[in-house]
Amino acid sequence: MPRYRLDIEYDGTAYAGWQRQDGPATVQGAIEQAIKGFCGEEVTLRGAGRTDAGVHATGQVGHVDLAKAWRDDTVRDAINAHLQMAGAAVAILAASTVPDDFDARFSATGRQYLYRILNRRAPAALERNRVWVVQKKIDADAMHEAAQVLVGRHDFTTFRSLQCQASSPLRTLERFDVVRKGDEIEIHAAARSFLHNQVRSMVGTIKRVGEGAWTAADVKAALEAKDRAACGSVAPPYGLYLTKVDY
Amino acid sequence: MPRYRLDIEYDGTAYAGWQRQDGPATVQGAIEQAIKGFCGEEVTLRGAGRTDAGVHATGQVGHVDLAKAWRDDTVRDAINAHLQMAGAAVAILAASTVPDDFDARFSATGRQYLYRILNRRAPAALERNRVWVVQKKIDADAMHEAAQVLVGRHDFTTFRSLQCQASSPLRTLERFDVVRKGDEIEIHAAARSFLHNQVRSMVGTIKRVGEGAWTAADVKAALEAKDRAACGSVAPPYGLYLTKVDY
Repeated sequence: MPRYRLDIEYDGTAYAGWQRQDGPATVQGAIEQAIKGFCGEEVTLRGAGRTDAGVHATGQVGHVDLAKAWRDDTVRDAINAHLQMAGAAVAILAASTVPDDFDARFSATGRQYLYRILNRRAPAALERNRVWVVQKKIDADAMHEAAQVLVGRHDFTTFRSLQCQASSPLRTLERFDVVRKGDEIEIHAAARSFLHNQVRSMVGTIKRVGEGAWTAADVKAALEAKDRAACGSVAPPYGLYLTKVDY
Repeated sequence: MPRYRLDIEYDGTAYAGWQRQDGPATVQGAIEQAIKGFCGEEVTLRGAGRTDAGVHATGQVGHVDLAKAWRDDTVRDAINAHLQMAGAAVAILAASTVPDDFDARFSATGRQYLYRILNRRAPAALERNRVWVVQKKIDADAMHEAAQVLVGRHDFTTFRSLQCQASSPLRTLERFDVVRKGDEIEIHAAARSFLHNQVRSMVGTIKRVGEGAWTAADVKAALEAKDRAACGSVAPPYGLYLTKVDY
């Protein structure tokens, strides 16, 4: 059975997240349906990251086994055709045949996320549901400085959802950079893996530094508290993008 | 009566264009309604450019007279609040008090447009309704070269809609640049004013050069034909953005 890697882009607005559920539309479910439409097979698509409702992706990766061998481009184009017919806000950027031991989730050696803040008084018209609008001017340099407190290997209990199912709260945050580009603030996060809600919890916390309510020392104290209640706040899902999975 | 200049951003997807109509939602109508909600006045908002259905703006400009003098920021925030309540995909970026002789349309000395092509095999998921997806690889350098044929003062009859109401087909195209950035092709057009459908007609025509079907000489011949039937094709509205109005 040939295995295919799929590189996936989606607008998470209309989806109850990545993971298939009974009832609400999900990204995984939409792609599995499109695959069924294309070749009639009922498959399970495994993804590298189970993004939450409203979270977007420009570089999600999944893998799927099909009974028949197809050309890579045929797999991409046929799934896209069925996604389009269903009106899905999901696109397969590439399909590629991979060895049987490739696992989109377990073979991944890194995940990269982008968080976008639009820092202006006016609401977002064109980027509605794609950025977090923060109306009060915030200091991106101060946010970047505070973000460096979190880089490295730590117990991230403060920054994970109470629903997080990972066995350990230890993670190594490789990168957490904050860059202002005009009215927009881009936050880049990279790690081998993240805990549930970790990026959004870290973004919500350093945003407090940006507005002057917290200092970098407060962020350090929150980290060291190892207590979910010490988290500053959780940034909304619609500013978050899974941009790349490394293998 | 104080006059206000409004700088306006909108996602044109859900609107039947800028201009107020009986029935379908328009950008002008949405803002006029929001102004009525804020101060109770029935006003007419004049815009610098009457964009078509589906066309977006990041820098549309309008002006409106209000009976009462308000702080500029109050005008901006109050209109935005009413736009948000109505679920409008429109935002007032700035409101500013201007002299009585300022006219958003007639005082304008230049208009700048951006046309976005996403040149890849996969459909657009995140940028759906915001880019023209061209699946076959096209040559942006060849498009740029052909675009230069159109720069300058010409009779643009070939590149205007048969419905265009301008008294003269003569226009001076100041800039028509094509730049590739990865999978995306950005086309920048600037002129004192444009004819109806001119940018989309020019983009559709130079796209033929990009795919190798036409040469720059064919574009020149089309221009010199001064015949609408000689136009290559008209690019779809959803890739077009009014980005700036100069005064």
